[in-house]
Amino acid sequence: MIQQVMIKEVKEWIYAAAEKIRASIDAELSIAQKSGRTDLVTNIDQETQAFLIGKIKERYPKDRILAEEEGYSELDSLQGRVWIIDPIDGTLNFVLERENFCIMIGFYENGIGQLGFIYDVMQDELFWGGKGLGVYKNEAALLPPANLTLSEGLLGMNAYMYGKNIHSAWEIGHESMGVRVSGCAGLEIIAMLKGNHIGYLSNLSPWDYAPGLVLLEEFGFKYAGINGQNLRFSGREYFLAATPKAFDTIQEKYLNV
Amino acid sequence: MIQQVMIKEVKEWIYAAAEKIRASIDAELSIAQKSGRTDLVTNIDQETQAFLIGKIKERYPKDRILAEEEGYSELDSLQGRVWIIDPIDGTLNFVLERENFCIMIGFYENGIGQLGFIYDVMQDELFWGGKGLGVYKNEAALLPPANLTLSEGLLGMNAYMYGKNIHSAWEIGHESMGVRVSGCAGLEIIAMLKGNHIGYLSNLSPWDYAPGLVLLEEFGFKYAGINGQNLRFSGREYFLAATPKAFDTIQEKYLNV
Repeated sequence: MIQQVMIKEVKEWIYAAAEKIRASIDAELSIAQKSGRTDLVTNIDQETQAFLIGKIKERYPKDRILAEEEGYSELDSLQGRVWIIDPIDGTLNFVLERENFCIMIGFYENGIGQLGFIYDVMQDELFWGGKGLGVYKNEAALLPPANLTLSEGLLGMNAYMYGKNIHSAWEIGHESMGVRVSGCAGLEIIAMLKGNHIGYLSNLSPWDYAPGLVLLEEFGFKYAGINGQNLRFSGREYFLAATPKAFDTIQEKYLNV
Repeated sequence: MIQQVMIKEVKEWIYAAAEKIRASIDAELSIAQKSGRTDLVTNIDQETQAFLIGKIKERYPKDRILAEEEGYSELDSLQGRVWIIDPIDGTLNFVLERENFCIMIGFYENGIGQLGFIYDVMQDELFWGGKGLGVYKNEAALLPPANLTLSEGLLGMNAYMYGKNIHSAWEIGHESMGVRVSGCAGLEIIAMLKGNHIGYLSNLSPWDYAPGLVLLEEFGFKYAGINGQNLRFSGREYFLAATPKAFDTIQEKYLNV
């Protein structure tokens, strides 16, 4: 019951944030570089984060928050109630394409994912769900995808890992039916939830994967750090998620886990 | 005037073909391999091609046809009136994702592109136009994208070329703001027409690029084979299209043209 209230609230926050973004989609952006020329932050990332954090603090003032932009990007632990937010996932797409980006919110309790939301803003498609609640696209319940093998499906990929063959990314991709690069972790996870892709190999920060992990777990996908370790939820790390069959093949055959 | 009639006809053919595809989008496919396990043809590719060729033959019986599937994949020249058809561009996406594929039709006279149509079937977005007619998304005229440099934009890429660094694809991608891989030439060309991507580097057959070239040319993009030669419109070949600035940089700095 409490969960149903939270789901309704979070959806309202996301739709309100997205409406602001869409209303100014053609406006000039204020853009700054973070770690390099392709790692950008815009005024819209910052304003969206501030809006979502404002809503959480107003409603759940004791909860803690981990979020991409300044001031919220580190937490010492996932103890208690924690919200994990990516205000604009796929900022480079947002800046250069004005589409193919997502708002993502996850809600965790003591390190366990409870609720996850990935909203493809320009397509107006909200993928959401929770532990034991199933996974939905807008109001329609989705069915879990088939447990395809690595050689049977398309694989979402981080381009740099593929081009430099980091952690055998090239060989892994070559065994798949083909690699796809979208530049947006949210879209890659959506592609898995829909059954379009069998997996995703990348280098991500916690706000890139935490909201989607709730949904991937609910659908029986496996995930881990690149050496099979638990994800750290702190800083960037190599990330693998896939159908159980593809996951086991990638770990055993290519990552020596 | 004759052109306006043709445009109206081709749109009707495309919409009718797409309606058939969408009506059976969840049906089981009959799938066969062509050159290898990731080069597929389905009954829907064949039926869509037969439908479109039937319409052309009924209406313009003297015109010649170059098309992807069996029996139409070679022409000795582009003399006279030639239709170039890809019934399902992005067949692997069609099979595995049931989205992210296009119907494409080009109309050429004596080797010169006159009309081009790229229809993103599941998004219901038709990009079309012609020599001197402009470029349209559905019924709205598009504006030509800015002439961005290589380092200012996203670059559509063939994954194999990138991973194997064929023709310096890795270095070219590295100078861009990022590479994207969609697995569908039509979607890559649409991304250029919208100004989302500055270019596209791939290995294509004539039906993959001929319809889109009409639109790219109308918007002032440059294109060529990988050594700067004219495209052959016969068999697979390496393909580069980009904004004039990005095209010149890629040729001069990376391809030694």
